[in-house]
Amino acid sequence: MANSRFEYVRTFERENILLPQTHIVIRVDGRGFHKFSDFYEFEKPNDEIALNVMNESAKQLMKTIPDIIMAYGDSDEYSFLLRKDCQLFDRREFKLITTFSSSFSANYQYYWNKLNSSKPLNIERLPTFDARAIVYPNDLNVIDYFKWRQVDCHINNLYNTTFWNLVIKGNMTTKEAENKLIGTLSSDKNEILFKEFGINYNDLPEMYKKGTIFLREYIDFPISKYKEQPTNECLIRLIKRSKKTEIKQYHCDLIKDSFWSDRPYLLQ
Amino acid sequence: MANSRFEYVRTFERENILLPQTHIVIRVDGRGFHKFSDFYEFEKPNDEIALNVMNESAKQLMKTIPDIIMAYGDSDEYSFLLRKDCQLFDRREFKLITTFSSSFSANYQYYWNKLNSSKPLNIERLPTFDARAIVYPNDLNVIDYFKWRQVDCHINNLYNTTFWNLVIKGNMTTKEAENKLIGTLSSDKNEILFKEFGINYNDLPEMYKKGTIFLREYIDFPISKYKEQPTNECLIRLIKRSKKTEIKQYHCDLIKDSFWSDRPYLLQ
Amino acid sequence: MANSRFEYVRTFERENILLPQTHIVIRVDGRGFHKFSDFYEFEKPNDEIALNVMNESAKQLMKTIPDIIMAYGDSDEYSFLLRKDCQLFDRREFKLITTFSSSFSANYQYYWNKLNSSKPLNIERLPTFDARAIVYPNDLNVIDYFKWRQVDCHINNLYNTTFWNLVIKGNMTTKEAENKLIGTLSSDKNEILFKEFGINYNDLPEMYKKGTIFLREYIDFPISKYKEQPTNECLIRLIKRSKKTEIKQYHCDLIKDSFWSDRPYLLQ
Amino acid sequence: MANSRFEYVRTFERENILLPQTHIVIRVDGRGFHKFSDFYEFEKPNDEIALNVMNESAKQLMKTIPDIIMAYGDSDEYSFLLRKDCQLFDRREFKLITTFSSSFSANYQYYWNKLNSSKPLNIERLPTFDARAIVYPNDLNVIDYFKWRQVDCHINNLYNTTFWNLVIKGNMTTKEAENKLIGTLSSDKNEILFKEFGINYNDLPEMYKKGTIFLREYIDFPISKYKEQPTNECLIRLIKRSKKTEIKQYHCDLIKDSFWSDRPYLLQ
Repeated sequence: MANSRFEYVRTFERENILLPQTHIVIRVDGRGFHKFSDFYEFEKPNDEIALNVMNESAKQLMKTIPDIIMAYGDSDEYSFLLRKDCQLFDRREFKLITTFSSSFSANYQYYWNKLNSSKPLNIERLPTFDARAIVYPNDLNVIDYFKWRQVDCHINNLYNTTFWNLVIKGNMTTKEAENKLIGTLSSDKNEILFKEFGINYNDLPEMYKKGTIFLREYIDFPISKYKEQPTNECLIRLIKRSKKTEIKQYHCDLIKDSFWSDRPYLLQ
Repeated sequence: MANSRFEYVRTFERENILLPQTHIVIRVDGRGFHKFSDFYEFEKPNDEIALNVMNESAKQLMKTIPDIIMAYGDSDEYSFLLRKDCQLFDRREFKLITTFSSSFSANYQYYWNKLNSSKPLNIERLPTFDARAIVYPNDLNVIDYFKWRQVDCHINNLYNTTFWNLVIKGNMTTKEAENKLIGTLSSDKNEILFKEFGINYNDLPEMYKKGTIFLREYIDFPISKYKEQPTNECLIRLIKRSKKTEIKQYHCDLIKDSFWSDRPYLLQ
Repeated sequence: MANSRFEYVRTFERENILLPQTHIVIRVDGRGFHKFSDFYEFEKPNDEIALNVMNESAKQLMKTIPDIIMAYGDSDEYSFLLRKDCQLFDRREFKLITTFSSSFSANYQYYWNKLNSSKPLNIERLPTFDARAIVYPNDLNVIDYFKWRQVDCHINNLYNTTFWNLVIKGNMTTKEAENKLIGTLSSDKNEILFKEFGINYNDLPEMYKKGTIFLREYIDFPISKYKEQPTNECLIRLIKRSKKTEIKQYHCDLIKDSFWSDRPYLLQ
Repeated sequence: MANSRFEYVRTFERENILLPQTHIVIRVDGRGFHKFSDFYEFEKPNDEIALNVMNESAKQLMKTIPDIIMAYGDSDEYSFLLRKDCQLFDRREFKLITTFSSSFSANYQYYWNKLNSSKPLNIERLPTFDARAIVYPNDLNVIDYFKWRQVDCHINNLYNTTFWNLVIKGNMTTKEAENKLIGTLSSDKNEILFKEFGINYNDLPEMYKKGTIFLREYIDFPISKYKEQPTNECLIRLIKRSKKTEIKQYHCDLIKDSFWSDRPYLLQ
């Protein structure tokens, strides 16, 4: 508002506008959550309450920002997909990423206080998140992005589950457990879990193995009609007709193609 | 960690490294604080508790990030100055700005709950902040940046003080008060305050008029020695000797040159 | 090669990598060609030799850079389309645009000396070109880009043809001609040309009205086969089979959709 | 000019404005000059005519762009320093670098035809140059930039001089000469030159050893007055008084500090 002789300093400001007509993915990532989870004594390998705090935070963000069509998260990270024609903040990168990091942190603290009230937060160790934006020109690349994150979730969870069983039930030191797992394949870890601890990895909760997906679904979308005529024009017409959306939560496989082909509106 | 065939999607990530050897200023700014202040019924024109929450949040951030040498804030914004040779996050812009927006929001919520507990936060209206980074190659431009913000504080505070007195004590509608102030000079507003409400603007609290400054001061810096030999080499030598720093709070004038010349280490 | 203590200065270099999987358009544009065309006394409204110099320069660039699949030019500008999967210079923007501006200028001077030898170039007024890169995520946007340039060619050429006929044959001053054309529609200009100078605009050379197109055509591409099964997979298979390409020159309409649908490989 | 419905494609254009108040260095670099020098049978290790073509091209560019205050070149590259307050093309990077690459190429071809007319240029092998811009916030870093290039010139020239003497006078194959020089120090190369070929490296032409410097000198600048009072204000005052500038050519040492301290206006 001030129109002073010092205002010229604004000419040093720089701005990056994300390329139009590209899919925007924004990934928020816990800062120093390894130490954070130690400090607040998370259950290992998975702390259900902490994961619920993550999920509630993501869902709340999705409620307040209608441009988010999908979210996927596991551990201390969440990825949000924005509609290709999203104009939020005129696609200004700094506004987008700092809003996401700030809002996610705010939600997290709020839900932590609510869902985890036996562990009051300490000013020296508040939960914070960084955020980055990535733009993808093609549907294929976006789909591969989410597959990449879900494969990552699987690999990390199998490792952590085996590791913490070795430590907690197997009485190994963390160093010993680490050494034992060096060079092991997935099949080796499955076998350790089953033979040494009687755990069938497949029976573990889907949320731990697959992460959490939120979708803004067109609940009355006539997918069979679309599949009869799978063109862009048809898709747009069908979307326009089925205005009613709902945010739904899943812990399913998004690597198989049907996840995407059954919901063509996600990448529209 | 996952080394899957989907990992190629990382090649779409972009990174901006802030130019070396420049002063970095990061400004965090409340998102939608006009509505926020209505929702939580802030005192007008200044809510002392809310300002204290801002100040405590900034001070806490300064404690955790040693690269911050100075902070200046008023209303719902805070600007942080980082040392010219700061290597935090390798000067990666996205990391810097999202860490600042996230941490400031986290601190704010924490201190709000502590200092303002009679007004519990609502999930629909959590405090969030965006953040941007600006780099300045010269000392002069950085100094002008902070002068710009303090002039802005003054102009806004004089306006708001007059406006809210007209509304609260003068029983004007907000529209009437707005119309009355269109085209008025500072001197006009001072006169309204004095004649109509018996308020001498100069007597108002310095925090409202000047904003809040935090400095990481070298408490035993021999400024007189430096002024005898005001060279860069001398400055570096004197800084090295006076290791002991302390975060100090001020509500003073930073537009006069002595503020800067008395603390040459701020821009080193 | 030098590994000296000064080499740290390289850390100030910045690099922009054009987003993968996007269409790259590079447009070169004559610098100060208004004055250039006066200095070398171009024929008005169109100097055929100068246009040939442009066209030969573009064609030569296309010969040396196989990633260029299409070029369109008129007046003193040329736009080049690179394949979506182009990896030239690792998609580094500065390398791409300075190579195009430099090479185009070099070609232009070479062909000028050859085709226009009665007008030797003067060191004070050498032909130079700037260049910019634009990336497009979608086929539609690229097609619209070229349509934009061809519409621009048409509008400018109709204006210039009318303007110069008014000046040269109509004995108007340039100021008078300018004033006469203010606010006129295309139909008005067509009428002036016909009524005052007996010129039917449609009969003018296609090169002037439509500009020049170079295509790297797959000369034996079985377009009818593709239209039977217009999928991406089919396209890739057919392209692989029809390796033989040839650079062909056109002055045709690229605004009608058949131009693009008959050559689906242009945007692959 | 055309205001068509396709014009929206301009929204995909991106622009980088170089940070204000920084020194801009633009370096042009020959593309494929190793092959170029073979094709046109350059004298080895240094082709005086080709170097003169480089120097004349740089000088001509400096004449036409008053913002260039200094240039330094050797071999097939030239670096140009622009004034800190340069507003050329509003500091738009693409305009700056493509203008430099284009103009330098144009000048080079022009002067080649003039100074090297016995070797007519071939369309398959025209001289072209890429260009990049680097911004430096501090004087020290700019000075180090030019020192870096001159050290590079020295190291390369000593190597090339020794290498080509081994090949031409010593009748070695290029492979043998390369192997002989692996791991050698400067002193070793000096000794080879002296003992095997009777060449005292120090006696070789300064242009080969030091490269070429062009300065836009204030020919009547009262340097002694400035040294009496070496402040910024004094410098600006003295520059204003001594308006007369001249482009001067040197082959001197710019690594010693006096080169810079004697010409304080270079970095103003």
